[in-house]
Amino acid sequence: MRNLGARLVDVKPGMTEIRVGYREDLTQQHGYFHGGVSATIADTACGYAAYTLTAADATVLTVEFKINMLAPALGEELIARARVVRSGRTLTVCTADVFGRKGEAETHCATMVATIMSLAGKSDGKMK
Amino acid sequence: MRNLGARLVDVKPGMTEIRVGYREDLTQQHGYFHGGVSATIADTACGYAAYTLTAADATVLTVEFKINMLAPALGEELIARARVVRSGRTLTVCTADVFGRKGEAETHCATMVATIMSLAGKSDGKMK
Amino acid sequence: MRNLGARLVDVKPGMTEIRVGYREDLTQQHGYFHGGVSATIADTACGYAAYTLTAADATVLTVEFKINMLAPALGEELIARARVVRSGRTLTVCTADVFGRKGEAETHCATMVATIMSLAGKSDGKMK
Amino acid sequence: MRNLGARLVDVKPGMTEIRVGYREDLTQQHGYFHGGVSATIADTACGYAAYTLTAADATVLTVEFKINMLAPALGEELIARARVVRSGRTLTVCTADVFGRKGEAETHCATMVATIMSLAGKSDGKMK
Repeated sequence: MRNLGARLVDVKPGMTEIRVGYREDLTQQHGYFHGGVSATIADTACGYAAYTLTAADATVLTVEFKINMLAPALGEELIARARVVRSGRTLTVCTADVFGRKGEAETHCATMVATIMSLAGKSDGKMK
Repeated sequence: MRNLGARLVDVKPGMTEIRVGYREDLTQQHGYFHGGVSATIADTACGYAAYTLTAADATVLTVEFKINMLAPALGEELIARARVVRSGRTLTVCTADVFGRKGEAETHCATMVATIMSLAGKSDGKMK
Repeated sequence: MRNLGARLVDVKPGMTEIRVGYREDLTQQHGYFHGGVSATIADTACGYAAYTLTAADATVLTVEFKINMLAPALGEELIARARVVRSGRTLTVCTADVFGRKGEAETHCATMVATIMSLAGKSDGKMK
Repeated sequence: MRNLGARLVDVKPGMTEIRVGYREDLTQQHGYFHGGVSATIADTACGYAAYTLTAADATVLTVEFKINMLAPALGEELIARARVVRSGRTLTVCTADVFGRKGEAETHCATMVATIMSLAGKSDGKMK
């Protein structure tokens, strides 16, 4: 996340938003943001969303995620918005949608569903 | 990919290998490689594997992928090995496995299945 | 679908609903609807949702889907509601949510994201 | 499973095979086995494979699975072969491949990756 220059810009219980600005070294061969950038910020947004609903002394780990690319990830910045779909004691299911923003306009460019695991008694929380 | 310092170290028809060395800014809160790094190199390895079997004037785009995290992504470097499972005219299905290497020992830390789309007549191929 | 006794109860452009009534032979070892039933009706609902937005002479095929199980699939009937997230010329991405209904109450028991392919010039449409 | 007439034909530690014979009511609009049948037998094969490696008093539940359709599911019978990729205390990751058999020839028609959860102290095991 530091590597991408991504910022956690919003955190509410069960919801988060992460943004990353355009940088040429984050693009793939067509000049779009690399799919790995969309995946990374969406995964991280899901992890944080799950984390807002876990016990204070727990940590979270991604079990798996799937991402469908819907449109080229273009724009001044890429925005991942995640929310918890189901919060369980051990497993939490989250969705995240990724948007490319140009000025005021946002284009929906990817959608993710992720499974996050909570591990009790391993305090944690630094964003990297 | 440039951003991660990843290297395409092997390319055969329908198979590729990508490696990325340890760097602290690629880790998450527990000191493992971030899941986004595993996803990025596995996705890229799948895209290249598909690309080796497409027409010379085609380009490839990721339609979707799913990654399951199997073990912490630890080690001096992370290795993604991809192979084509089914190559079609429009869609190619690939799998990639990600390993953390410490000295001679490798740990299987993630597995991906990806759908890659070929678009004819859009020559391409720069690695980013 | 015939095999399950499932019924397509609602079809609008880009949206469908499929229902299947409880039958003991559709349950797994704990008495819930088998995950395969949830997957089958959600997949079919996604296929029909995509089909409502394709050319009249096209057919649809499932490329892939992923389903996350959120809660036991219990109740008098199981309901899958699908909608198109992105409709493309070749590929359409749909989501479906599956609910178990007991009387008036519905429980969200699974969520799917599916990729559907349109093949032009192969007229089709019988429900099975 | 009973509903499909599926049979668990092989069980070894970490590996299973399930077969289902052709029946017209298991097909979709093109005469292939419905994708839901492939998904159901692959999911069940994964669950059983995981179950072979869990404690005797545990039960298993599917957390999620993804299936990629590779080729039409045609033939006299459909075969799902599953194996455990990683067995953990709580979560087990399995893959399954689905083949359509005509005489001696098998065609690889789908591939699945599934996450299975073990719940201790809930003895179980009837096949349905």
